[in-house]
Amino acid sequence: MNHSRTESASRDSTPDEDVVTLAHGAGTGHTRSLVDDLVVTRFHDDESETAASPGAVELVALDDGSAHPVGDGDRAVVVTTDSHVVSPPVFPGGDIGRLAVAGTINDLAVMGATEVLSLTCSLVIEEGYPVAELESILDSMQATCDEADARITTGDTKVMPSGDLDGPVLNTTGVALVSREAVVRDAGASPGDAIIVSGTVGDHGIALLSAREGFDFGGPLESDVAPVNGLVRRALAAGRVTAMKDPTRGGLATTLNEMAQKADVGLELDEQAIPVDDTVASAGEVLGIEPLDVANEGKVVFTVAPDDAEAVCTAIREHPLGREAAVIGHATEDHAGRVVLDTGLGRRYLSEPEGQTLPRIC
Amino acid sequence: MNHSRTESASRDSTPDEDVVTLAHGAGTGHTRSLVDDLVVTRFHDDESETAASPGAVELVALDDGSAHPVGDGDRAVVVTTDSHVVSPPVFPGGDIGRLAVAGTINDLAVMGATEVLSLTCSLVIEEGYPVAELESILDSMQATCDEADARITTGDTKVMPSGDLDGPVLNTTGVALVSREAVVRDAGASPGDAIIVSGTVGDHGIALLSAREGFDFGGPLESDVAPVNGLVRRALAAGRVTAMKDPTRGGLATTLNEMAQKADVGLELDEQAIPVDDTVASAGEVLGIEPLDVANEGKVVFTVAPDDAEAVCTAIREHPLGREAAVIGHATEDHAGRVVLDTGLGRRYLSEPEGQTLPRIC
Repeated sequence: MNHSRTESASRDSTPDEDVVTLAHGAGTGHTRSLVDDLVVTRFHDDESETAASPGAVELVALDDGSAHPVGDGDRAVVVTTDSHVVSPPVFPGGDIGRLAVAGTINDLAVMGATEVLSLTCSLVIEEGYPVAELESILDSMQATCDEADARITTGDTKVMPSGDLDGPVLNTTGVALVSREAVVRDAGASPGDAIIVSGTVGDHGIALLSAREGFDFGGPLESDVAPVNGLVRRALAAGRVTAMKDPTRGGLATTLNEMAQKADVGLELDEQAIPVDDTVASAGEVLGIEPLDVANEGKVVFTVAPDDAEAVCTAIREHPLGREAAVIGHATEDHAGRVVLDTGLGRRYLSEPEGQTLPRIC
Repeated sequence: MNHSRTESASRDSTPDEDVVTLAHGAGTGHTRSLVDDLVVTRFHDDESETAASPGAVELVALDDGSAHPVGDGDRAVVVTTDSHVVSPPVFPGGDIGRLAVAGTINDLAVMGATEVLSLTCSLVIEEGYPVAELESILDSMQATCDEADARITTGDTKVMPSGDLDGPVLNTTGVALVSREAVVRDAGASPGDAIIVSGTVGDHGIALLSAREGFDFGGPLESDVAPVNGLVRRALAAGRVTAMKDPTRGGLATTLNEMAQKADVGLELDEQAIPVDDTVASAGEVLGIEPLDVANEGKVVFTVAPDDAEAVCTAIREHPLGREAAVIGHATEDHAGRVVLDTGLGRRYLSEPEGQTLPRIC
């Protein structure tokens, strides 16, 4: 009845407003409004953003975690957390253990923290869960840690009664210590910066959905899940990276929209330059799903100062996980906060996928 | 058939060996063998324990978390993690939100880290979960943070399809930075040390079980769930605390057995001196459950150098959460690795509860 009040409300009015929906877990617009409305408004503390007294802990809000200046302020402790529920728990190219370790290492890496001080592993499983499967997940976690030169240093195990939990829930939290100037925020893109993606997009999401549905597309479809901290380290050493992010839930489309909004720049993409595996592209067409809209678990998007773009792209290509890296566009003053896709035939805004694209694949 | 091999095996041979059982989540002997066998053997790295090269990250294994020397080694980053599944999610005296925040703050506190740098909040909920209940949990988390002068700085939300998850799963990970000499290990008790408990034991476990079963014992039964970092800070300032631990899953009996084993001392208790609320004691008798065997969520057990015992106990009593603190015994050279209970009529070993005492109340 009070129309003006409705308009100023920050949460969309939808029939689902009273209960949580799967769309709330999809990592796109819906998740952000749930998180923004319920969580951030409670836990955010404006005062801390400007706290300048010596020794005060200043919170630097980062999209994938938080950074906490310590000591005389020249260094920062960086923290990130992620809970993983994935169906199926073992999929082509990986499993929930590899996903959990790589996901957290990658969240640290895109904040500039490529050396991990501590990874935690907290596991919730159901009564009756096969010990052999648990062992396999733990082995996979350890192998992924080895690849990334990281270690699980503490953990926790809880068991729920039979019937209460479908599949394991795995939380990994990562902690790193970095020099404060090394922290890279995802809001740092400037007009003129080149946009670089470290390889083909859509592999994880399309591979999982195909596996779940039992489709066979005639070619190998595998998740790209991998820890990218080594690749990021190489990129950072090669030139001025102004922002970076791992395009997980919601895919490249969501990630670029977030980067554009946070930096208040336009991001213009050359669609032909975006690397997409042929089988992934065909599978996406059959499934009716855009590879740009689904999760990647071993990729990074960078914005890079224009003069350094070639050097950074070359450095990434020299890493085993970055062989198909490409410059896919650039940041502009125009279209601030939006992503523009040049298809070769014309230009259109690339919006982020709405609602539930692929539940439980992250 | 191979008897000697069976004896040397570290895991008990039980019919349940191939699948996870509820007893694996009870925090007593079974959980420790699951954790020891599956997790620790994979993730533990002996080399790091002795790594002495400058700048090397040495892992200090702590029961409730890990400590990582940083910089020139005078300080340590302390990390702990805990996933919470509790039934019912709202109970007399608290809820899962308060439990998660207090639990993690308390795990940091008993390692000597009473000032929290970062708390993470990772939430897994089921589709259809009422938003109002979620808001209530988040409010409770924030209120508990305020009590402890801590903040949630980063988080994550995942949604599982309807029917896949009974009740929310809440992970909280805590990070703190402390001077390295302030780190208190749970293995530090020496013969002669006094044993102090900060208040009545068994309140949380008995209150939850009573609530779940719908029993009414004629008196108020409330969980003691609370953040104890302020109380611990006061104790540490008052005297030489040689070890401390929060007696959560498995209760005081399990905690003291662990402390005795780790320090290789005997711990001798005066049963009459152990504070137990009258209603808790009656309820425990009716339910057939020992208050010493069930979880506490706002208590700490200390061992303290003998000369400082009175000062530390007095300091704890001056804290609102420690008014019923008591010296309940002392460490001995005899009975190394065991807990001896003097009942007033005689002495017996106090063993830790085996198997599933109270599932899902932590």
